[in-house]
Parts: sequence; C-alpha cells; structure tokens
Amino acid sequence: MENNTLSAATTTTVITPGQLLKHWQGHRALTRRMIEAFPEDQLFTFSVGGMRPFSTLVMEFCGMAFPSVYGVITDEWLGIDVLLKDTGAVVKPTTKAELLQLWDVITEKLNEWWPKIPVEAFQKEITAFGQYEGKSVSILFYIFDNEIHHRGQGYVYLRALGIEPPAFWDRDQNL
Amino acid sequence: MENNTLSAATTTTVITPGQLLKHWQGHRALTRRMIEAFPEDQLFTFSVGGMRPFSTLVMEFCGMAFPSVYGVITDEWLGIDVLLKDTGAVVKPTTKAELLQLWDVITEKLNEWWPKIPVEAFQKEITAFGQYEGKSVSILFYIFDNEIHHRGQGYVYLRALGIEPPAFWDRDQNL
Repeated sequence: MENNTLSAATTTTVITPGQLLKHWQGHRALTRRMIEAFPEDQLFTFSVGGMRPFSTLVMEFCGMAFPSVYGVITDEWLGIDVLLKDTGAVVKPTTKAELLQLWDVITEKLNEWWPKIPVEAFQKEITAFGQYEGKSVSILFYIFDNEIHHRGQGYVYLRALGIEPPAFWDRDQNL
Repeated sequence: MENNTLSAATTTTVITPGQLLKHWQGHRALTRRMIEAFPEDQLFTFSVGGMRPFSTLVMEFCGMAFPSVYGVITDEWLGIDVLLKDTGAVVKPTTKAELLQLWDVITEKLNEWWPKIPVEAFQKEITAFGQYEGKSVSILFYIFDNEIHHRGQGYVYLRALGIEPPAFWDRDQNL
C-alpha cells in the first residue's frame, strides 16, 4: 500500500481524521440518548449481575475522552477536573441533568481540539495517562470501543427495566 | 491534511489496512473467548430482558464479517452458505464446537481476503448487501462496532450467570 501513488490522499486513506471524529461523535450522540432513556434513579443505581450502574460507566467515558485527545496533542495527561474547570460543568455529577451537561461540554471540547491533532500523531508511540503504551490511534480506538462495549451493557439494563433503548444503527453513517 | 507531503504514508495515515485487520482480529479473538466461556446450553438459550441468546448474536457477526469483506472486493453480496461451502464449516451450528469451528474458518478467510481490498476501496460509496448505502469504511466499522456492542451484551449474560468474562482489554493493542 505504501507504494501506491498518493496524489489523492482521501482515496488512498482508510479513514481521515475528520471522518473518525464524525464516527466517534455519532457514537457519542447515541450514548447521550442512552443517558436520556434511563429513569433518573435507575441511571445511578440499576445493575445486573453486580456490574456498575450506567452513570458510573458514563463517567468512565467522560474521564477518558477529552483527556486522551488533549494528551495526544500536548503529551500532558490531565483529568477533567483540571481540563474543564472553566467550563461550568460539574465533573462529579449527581443528577441526569448535570451528567448531560458534562457530556455536552465534552462534545464541544472534542470538536474544538480534535482538528489540532497533527496527522502524524496517530501513528506515534505514546504512554497514555502515564501508563498505557501504544500508538495514539490504538489508545483512541480503545476509548471508542470501550464506550461501545459498556453502552451495550446499558442496553441490557434498559431491556431488563422494560425500556426500549434507542436504535444502535441510528447514527450518522455518512462519513 | 490532504496538502501534507505524503512521502511517508504510514506516518500520515490515521490507520493502515493491516492495522485495522489486526485490530478487528484482536476483537474477534476476544469474542471467541466469550463463546468458549459460555456453558454449552446457556450459549444457545440464556437471555436477559427478552434479548437474543449469545449464539444468535454470534451468528449475526458470522453472517456479516466475511460476506462484507468479500463484497467490498467483488461487489457481490453472498451469504456464508455460498461463500464457505467448500470449507467443511457448518453454517448453521447447533453446538459450541461447530460454532467455534465456523468462527475459525471465518478468521482464516478474513486473513486471506482482507489484503486483497484495494486501498482506494475504503473510501468508495457502495450498497452493501444490496441495501446499506455508504462508504466501505463506514460499512466495515458498522460491522466491527456491532460485534463490540452485542458482545458487551454477552458480558452481562455471563455476569448474570455468575461467570467471570474474559477481560475486555486483553487484546493485541500493538498495532
């Protein structure tokens, strides 16, 4: 593949950075609809098989999403308590409204910062959060996949509660 | 990004085709360990919240994985009953052993066929399975994500059965 003529970069690329952000934000929009679908009390308490409540899983996504993008760009690995301190977001939400507001602040931060990732950074070896070694692209895919994985867990919680979850396929597939 | 010098393709690419296959096969190896972790009877019958048994979800993955790669390459959209007819795999497995054998045949087919995907095909608009419109990369990501999503559902099934699932992070992250 590296020997192909690369005059038209978009046709010789698996996926562009802009497409990957769009793909991720499509998934994040679905996760937001999952948060909305949970009754307020069950969001923070409901569990199957001793697993974590959905709000705790969502906070895991929040702790990884923008800090990882910021880290890939700056090589500084900071928590959302530091990174979002001037945004007005509650970084330890205790209500659905606070959790959704935090989610939305992160959505905006990702849209603002993702385009600052230098293209060559995706293939760069890093140590994310001071401990996870790998290429940036591998770290980022881990974070995307972790959200899909645990959100799938949330689908079972909603079904077990007798609530129809939002459709998995209802995302912007037009990359 | 398209204006960058592309003399070193691997450093100006988000992810290469080979890395994406490795990433997918890492996920598929985890799904295989999930199949193994289910007791034989529960694999075909256990459900939470009226959702499908894990074996049915796995058959959905099997019906999409190789047919989609074959389709991206040939623009022919065929089922595994046709595509795997000379492999000896049982395409409607009723035992865990048959399901694992089918899984392994597909793993080999993906390793054999994925490198035949022309790089420019990832960004090509297609109509997958005669009905799903989008770029090939979007169709392929849908299939990867669908597996992660439903496998997350399987994690809840195992926990509800009192069985420790294989670790989500235990995949080859070294892309």
